[in-house]
Amino acid sequence: MDDIKYSLGIDIGGTNTVFGLIDDNGQVIKKTSIYTKSNEHPKFLFQRIFNEIDKWEDMLKSKNIIKFIGAGVPNGNYFTGYVVNPPNLGKDWLHFDLCALIRSFRDIPVAITNDANAAAIGEKFYGAAKKFSDAIIITLGTGLGSGLIVNNKIIYGNNGFAGELGHLVVDRNGRECNCGLRGCLEMYVSAKGLEYTIKELKNDYPENKFLHSLNDKKKNGKRIDEAFDNNEKLAIDIYKFTGRKLGQGLAMAATILAPEAFIFYGGLSNARHRILNYAEKSMNDHLPSYFKKNDIKILQSNLFDGEAGIIGASCLNKTQN
Amino acid sequence: MDDIKYSLGIDIGGTNTVFGLIDDNGQVIKKTSIYTKSNEHPKFLFQRIFNEIDKWEDMLKSKNIIKFIGAGVPNGNYFTGYVVNPPNLGKDWLHFDLCALIRSFRDIPVAITNDANAAAIGEKFYGAAKKFSDAIIITLGTGLGSGLIVNNKIIYGNNGFAGELGHLVVDRNGRECNCGLRGCLEMYVSAKGLEYTIKELKNDYPENKFLHSLNDKKKNGKRIDEAFDNNEKLAIDIYKFTGRKLGQGLAMAATILAPEAFIFYGGLSNARHRILNYAEKSMNDHLPSYFKKNDIKILQSNLFDGEAGIIGASCLNKTQN
Repeated sequence: MDDIKYSLGIDIGGTNTVFGLIDDNGQVIKKTSIYTKSNEHPKFLFQRIFNEIDKWEDMLKSKNIIKFIGAGVPNGNYFTGYVVNPPNLGKDWLHFDLCALIRSFRDIPVAITNDANAAAIGEKFYGAAKKFSDAIIITLGTGLGSGLIVNNKIIYGNNGFAGELGHLVVDRNGRECNCGLRGCLEMYVSAKGLEYTIKELKNDYPENKFLHSLNDKKKNGKRIDEAFDNNEKLAIDIYKFTGRKLGQGLAMAATILAPEAFIFYGGLSNARHRILNYAEKSMNDHLPSYFKKNDIKILQSNLFDGEAGIIGASCLNKTQN
Repeated sequence: MDDIKYSLGIDIGGTNTVFGLIDDNGQVIKKTSIYTKSNEHPKFLFQRIFNEIDKWEDMLKSKNIIKFIGAGVPNGNYFTGYVVNPPNLGKDWLHFDLCALIRSFRDIPVAITNDANAAAIGEKFYGAAKKFSDAIIITLGTGLGSGLIVNNKIIYGNNGFAGELGHLVVDRNGRECNCGLRGCLEMYVSAKGLEYTIKELKNDYPENKFLHSLNDKKKNGKRIDEAFDNNEKLAIDIYKFTGRKLGQGLAMAATILAPEAFIFYGGLSNARHRILNYAEKSMNDHLPSYFKKNDIKILQSNLFDGEAGIIGASCLNKTQN
């Protein structure tokens, strides 16, 4: 077994961190998910990750199975190896040399990038974006992240922060975002945005039974899906509102980049057509008239749930940027 | 002289069309500007262009001085050679095979692109964008156009319509645009937007002398510049408002693309610092907090006035897209 070398792909989210061993064909050999505990210092998260890796190595009876470590993390900077002001992680992540931390656990090649860029690379190498030269991959998790594929390559921009569609302003007087702006797309279209919408509706309809049932962040998405399928008016309203805001953001991004497709990935995207049909209609309504209707595809990731991020992170040493 | 071959670069605007002979080093050998007369059929514009070219050829005593013709035109599509729904041109331009028309005058290689992309290519090959791998070039003319340089290349997107920053929505309930949307950036930041702002102010201040003096579209820009320099309050208000809106649009584009610089070109950009200082402040105010302040440069084109478009158009056969 000693000559078999895998890459370790890590996908750090505001709530969960997924990591796995990936082979040279993009196949996930082994993976698991743990809580990020984002208010703790990142060293504790990585201690727990490498404890698990140690167990995997014991199981595989080899101490050298990993040849490369790639991590996707909110506001991870490919060029500097630092995480800077990540919107959904705690104070110890504010300006943090993540590559150095990872290397302190294993002294092998390491690269990091934005979590959404990692997912985009996964989709481009092995998923729904494979056939497109211009696509935007959107991660709907705790926040809303995105990765831009232009001319078959991921775009980083000058400072590594290109592609932050979550901070496009869709309502200039809207909800306050912790990036300092108001009305950012992610304040409407993400797990966080959904909770905000539910809270507002609870104020408007304090007696509503369905809204009362939405009392567990982790289960709310699934409950709204079910209620939507049962024609519960407020469930439809929630997704219609979410989809409309999403469509406004997509139209702005399309006005700038004119991609072939938007590809969705992450927790909230499991609502699928329930949100995405409204988003598609809203996007077409908000595109300038020189766009042909239905020119831009709205697709769901076709990689196994939660794997685009770790697969993409594990390919970071194969990107040319 | 017979072996000397130039490229003909044409820059078609809503009001004026500039064209010139450009050599292989990007030097403009000869150029002129004529009215576009945008409500006439395009064949009349090209008849007038080639009448002038005939004269130049007589003067240069050669009939074969042009080896390539490139044109920048609103909503010109590099891939199809068509102009489609150009916002500031008349009905005969609605869906028009411009490459075929040009070839009917001269049967030599021809390419067209969006007018703003042409200017961007000019700036990238020979102007202020030369040293940047990621820059956004903005044309402030009758409308607001833009060209995106990403990883040293112009971006066209899937349908050739990438980079239309003029149609980014900065005020969802704002001024009606003829692209079908409301509150598009170009309805505030362009010659057209400026006229709109002046009209609104005239309604608010019907007796104001300075506003009354703004009665000639072609001279208004210069008059506001002069009044601004003389501390006329309403002139300052006009540019402050224009610059603020511009900054909001720049921030949105930067949130997506994180460029090194925005470079300005075209009629209204002659107001220079009078608008751009407000725009820079507004952009920094509207960027998410993970951007460093003053990370993104705001620059003026350094090509001779009106030449970026024709130089860029003349290089269209040297781009790799």
